Amino acid sequence: MDLTLYQKEFLTYLEHKNWVREPKNLYDPINYILQLSGKRIRPILTLMACDMLASEYQKALPAALAVEVFHNFTLVHDDIMDDAPLRRGMQTVHEKWNLNTGILSGDAMLILAYQYFENYEPKTFQRLAKLFSKTALEVCDGQQLDIDFETRNDVTINEYLEMIRLKTSVLVAAALKMGAIVANSQEKEADLLYEYGLNLGMAFQLQDDYLDTFGNPETFGKQVGGDIIENKKTFLYLKALELASEEDKQKLRFFYKQKLEENSIKLNEVIRIFEKYNIPIIIQNLIADYTKASFSSLESMSISNKSKKSLEDFGSFLMARNK
Amino acid sequence: MDLTLYQKEFLTYLEHKNWVREPKNLYDPINYILQLSGKRIRPILTLMACDMLASEYQKALPAALAVEVFHNFTLVHDDIMDDAPLRRGMQTVHEKWNLNTGILSGDAMLILAYQYFENYEPKTFQRLAKLFSKTALEVCDGQQLDIDFETRNDVTINEYLEMIRLKTSVLVAAALKMGAIVANSQEKEADLLYEYGLNLGMAFQLQDDYLDTFGNPETFGKQVGGDIIENKKTFLYLKALELASEEDKQKLRFFYKQKLEENSIKLNEVIRIFEKYNIPIIIQNLIADYTKASFSSLESMSISNKSKKSLEDFGSFLMARNK
Repeated sequence: MDLTLYQKEFLTYLEHKNWVREPKNLYDPINYILQLSGKRIRPILTLMACDMLASEYQKALPAALAVEVFHNFTLVHDDIMDDAPLRRGMQTVHEKWNLNTGILSGDAMLILAYQYFENYEPKTFQRLAKLFSKTALEVCDGQQLDIDFETRNDVTINEYLEMIRLKTSVLVAAALKMGAIVANSQEKEADLLYEYGLNLGMAFQLQDDYLDTFGNPETFGKQVGGDIIENKKTFLYLKALELASEEDKQKLRFFYKQKLEENSIKLNEVIRIFEKYNIPIIIQNLIADYTKASFSSLESMSISNKSKKSLEDFGSFLMARNK
Repeated sequence: MDLTLYQKEFLTYLEHKNWVREPKNLYDPINYILQLSGKRIRPILTLMACDMLASEYQKALPAALAVEVFHNFTLVHDDIMDDAPLRRGMQTVHEKWNLNTGILSGDAMLILAYQYFENYEPKTFQRLAKLFSKTALEVCDGQQLDIDFETRNDVTINEYLEMIRLKTSVLVAAALKMGAIVANSQEKEADLLYEYGLNLGMAFQLQDDYLDTFGNPETFGKQVGGDIIENKKTFLYLKALELASEEDKQKLRFFYKQKLEENSIKLNEVIRIFEKYNIPIIIQNLIADYTKASFSSLESMSISNKSKKSLEDFGSFLMARNK
């Protein structure tokens, strides 16, 4: 299984889509955000799943594009909500254009995603669109919980895990299941792949949390410590609050109220507390648990051992990443 | 054909939907906007079309709800883009909550609209969803053109008519066609109904433009002259620019650059120019043309004369409205 092949094929397919369309002010931003190079993990998963189950990936290209366009829709609207100036080192859509363009281009992308399913016959279309709607609504729920958590001081670890399940994992899982649907798989088989993706998605997001604070600054790509600087209550923070002494808890809470110009003291102090309570090890164990759980869904699947090995390799590859 | 029956049945159906769902901050605004009483013209059209073509309207209730939820999604996002504090005399969603809630609740409504089509079997589902996606994208195009026109000084009448076709008419037309699809009509028959709706939608929006300036203040419901006060380049303004003398043109352009505290002089002057060039009569003739065109699509339809009469009555009813 050659992941770079899927990536290349997907990018070629993406390039050949004609985004140049009127009104320009609506479609130029869509073209812009889709060109910003991401890892394209979700569409790759759709192609990979279809290839594994039906020995062809080309048929899954429209579904893969739907997933990627939806993912980019969430980026455009989330960046507005987070007031983010940059995305992958480039201006966000609402910064480069304006708020209204960000809202409306995002809306159009959500609709375009549904349109790509029109390439499939009615039964497949309905299976895809149903899964897509369910997933998209869960992603909205997850985003809302994320917003709600910003102003809450009593978020539990379980609530946090549920939030990242909705905001991140379900789309990874759905991307895989869509590949299975295009391959015309049985529901049971498709669901096992979904389970694999769900657990892998959890591991993936927790890895993100870990790397944001403990990643290697030379390979990470973003500023290490961004989550701490922005007072994001990730797993690291919530777990530390759970385990820390009263004194350290107060310190953490204090630092997570500050918006500072100069963050080195805050970063040092917070990381020291995280390390004191073994949070880096605890999160890595949890990531390993989710990764293991994802592999165990594969066992019951009736795919070749070679395919299982590929999916395991993909999981290991995602977990070994440093950005 | 009893329109109030459809309206009542639709409202009952709407009330029985369970909107109380978590996260509350996402679904409360959806419940709120859907309760603000509108005329419910679009869902009524869906029910009416299905009733006429298959002698039942109940089957069309989910499709009617999809249309209404989509329409309300556009209201929520448009109100953000227009920075509107009020909608139907009540606070808009982004005012009552905040910008992020307005964006995210709107997104969820767009997805919910698609979900209501899941009530239909795959072929009908695909026909409905395809028409819906096409229409929704056209509405986005229309909204973008509307935004673009605000900063343009060279908008032609034809461009304006194309904008209102996209922003308003296609949804009226699609609402009718969806009723026909649920009734399992032939594509040709459904398309004639679509044509009827498209022309009726044009007449409807132009009537809106007319009433906004020349409506009876006692029955209109909104402030008469709102479009002029907000410098909205409606048909009235664009047609006047086309016909007026150089001096009156300059006057119009001057007034449409002003944001005033006290608008009575501006209103008097602009309306005087509109009347001087017969704009009220010109627009009423155009409305009559579109209404007639809508009726002519009915002629080729293989529905009962009673049904044709009902659709004509509906058109006349819409045109006779004073708000």
